[in-house]
Amino acid sequence: MNYLDRIVFLNGDYIPAKDAKLSIFDRGLLFADAVYEGLGLMDGKVADFELHMQRLERSLSELDMPNPLPRAQYLEVFQRLASENNIQDGFFYLQVTRGAADRNYLYSAEMTPNVFAFVQPQKPVKDRNTHLGVKMHAVPDLRWKRRDIKTTNLLGQVMAKKAAHDAGAFDALLVDADGRVTEAASRSFFIVKDNTIIAPPVTEEILHGITRQVIVKVADSEELNTVFRWFTLDEVFTADEAFLTGSSTTVVPVIQIDDNVIGNGQPGRIALRLREEYLAMTANS
Amino acid sequence: MNYLDRIVFLNGDYIPAKDAKLSIFDRGLLFADAVYEGLGLMDGKVADFELHMQRLERSLSELDMPNPLPRAQYLEVFQRLASENNIQDGFFYLQVTRGAADRNYLYSAEMTPNVFAFVQPQKPVKDRNTHLGVKMHAVPDLRWKRRDIKTTNLLGQVMAKKAAHDAGAFDALLVDADGRVTEAASRSFFIVKDNTIIAPPVTEEILHGITRQVIVKVADSEELNTVFRWFTLDEVFTADEAFLTGSSTTVVPVIQIDDNVIGNGQPGRIALRLREEYLAMTANS
Repeated sequence: MNYLDRIVFLNGDYIPAKDAKLSIFDRGLLFADAVYEGLGLMDGKVADFELHMQRLERSLSELDMPNPLPRAQYLEVFQRLASENNIQDGFFYLQVTRGAADRNYLYSAEMTPNVFAFVQPQKPVKDRNTHLGVKMHAVPDLRWKRRDIKTTNLLGQVMAKKAAHDAGAFDALLVDADGRVTEAASRSFFIVKDNTIIAPPVTEEILHGITRQVIVKVADSEELNTVFRWFTLDEVFTADEAFLTGSSTTVVPVIQIDDNVIGNGQPGRIALRLREEYLAMTANS
Repeated sequence: MNYLDRIVFLNGDYIPAKDAKLSIFDRGLLFADAVYEGLGLMDGKVADFELHMQRLERSLSELDMPNPLPRAQYLEVFQRLASENNIQDGFFYLQVTRGAADRNYLYSAEMTPNVFAFVQPQKPVKDRNTHLGVKMHAVPDLRWKRRDIKTTNLLGQVMAKKAAHDAGAFDALLVDADGRVTEAASRSFFIVKDNTIIAPPVTEEILHGITRQVIVKVADSEELNTVFRWFTLDEVFTADEAFLTGSSTTVVPVIQIDDNVIGNGQPGRIALRLREEYLAMTANS
């Protein structure tokens, strides 16, 4: 099914994607003045809905943007999109823009936001081979400084993904000017050393990943210790394990970064355990 | 005239702005995967057309994006927009997006770009009071690292402009983490000390301003010396003059930054001279 034949949500209406359009004066298009969320759809269930809504509300609030819909309605939108398009596994995408106006950096507080959402199908996580581990490609982190706001200013990530793809890697690993490993182009990144999970601190310098947040709780319930601090690429290369988390991929073990093999080159024991726990938890939710 | 009643250009057609729309799957909207140009319209003339086209071509090339139109056709578009809308003074806006596809950071080389352009009216430069000098507000430079590519990843600039507006300032002055003054939120920034014009070097850290480039040539022809090097906010406060350049404002003297008066608090002699020369040059072009 071509994506333009799917049914999408736009400002209250469920319409064919080919008819879903916004003005060229929309500030999402002119200034990337927009926030978004991506949520997993797993076996018909919307993963971590409340946490994604909390983050959406925070992103909107940081940008002085009103939330066009009450929280409960977003759940109805996602459920109807899955049902209308007959999709059981994949991801939901939701975007809110500040709205349309004559081009001016300054915005009016009275603007009407635009909101749209769609669902894209993907193989169920269990049917992908990501549990076998993936390779990554390290690149400089070119992004702006407010990475904690989930905005559509994503060209740095697009360029990193292109470089990773050209290098035959699953995702890019971003390293900032101070040599700190921040995260992947579209996922959170963890290392494990001596049975301790290490993750960057939750600051403005990283996206506050929802699956990351859930996985830290899962680790805690499994009596695994997690430490939040910055680490360098050298520390990654000597880690016992490394793994990614993301809403449409859950937990993915990382076995190599460019020419550097992580641990014994096999998916990490802790990464696989967290992945199983997360999938079991989602299946039972 | 409401902006939605104006005639705009979209992919070859001249249509009412209210009908000019792009798919919600356009990568300009989802990833800010788009470049743009803003050009001055002064007394019916398109300012610095060839230089803007050179920069557009460079931005597209840096992002592996094809140019949808030959250079000469853009001039026809601008001239027709001015004529259809009966606008003599203002600015042209031109944007090229990578096109629409199902959401994926990775793009295909075969995508069809979308191109649109519009004109917005403004008072003629000579009828504004910017020659009297403006105040600015200093803020941290939050932008990404490839500021030399003129993309729509502009949320950092939007936030800076909002802060400047709230502080009663004409524009924001961006200062990076190393204490270097890069530029204004939407204009280039210069200082003058002991009759030497000082401007940041042309690197990936600043936008390569077209009016900036022309003004450097004008200064050269006036036998004024220009030095390209980084400078700090402290150096700005002790400068003899400061000024902005931009395609829709030409040269604007800066007389104050927050509570710090520049020079004697009056528009600088060199800034005003460059402004007059630029306006005369454009009028005679």
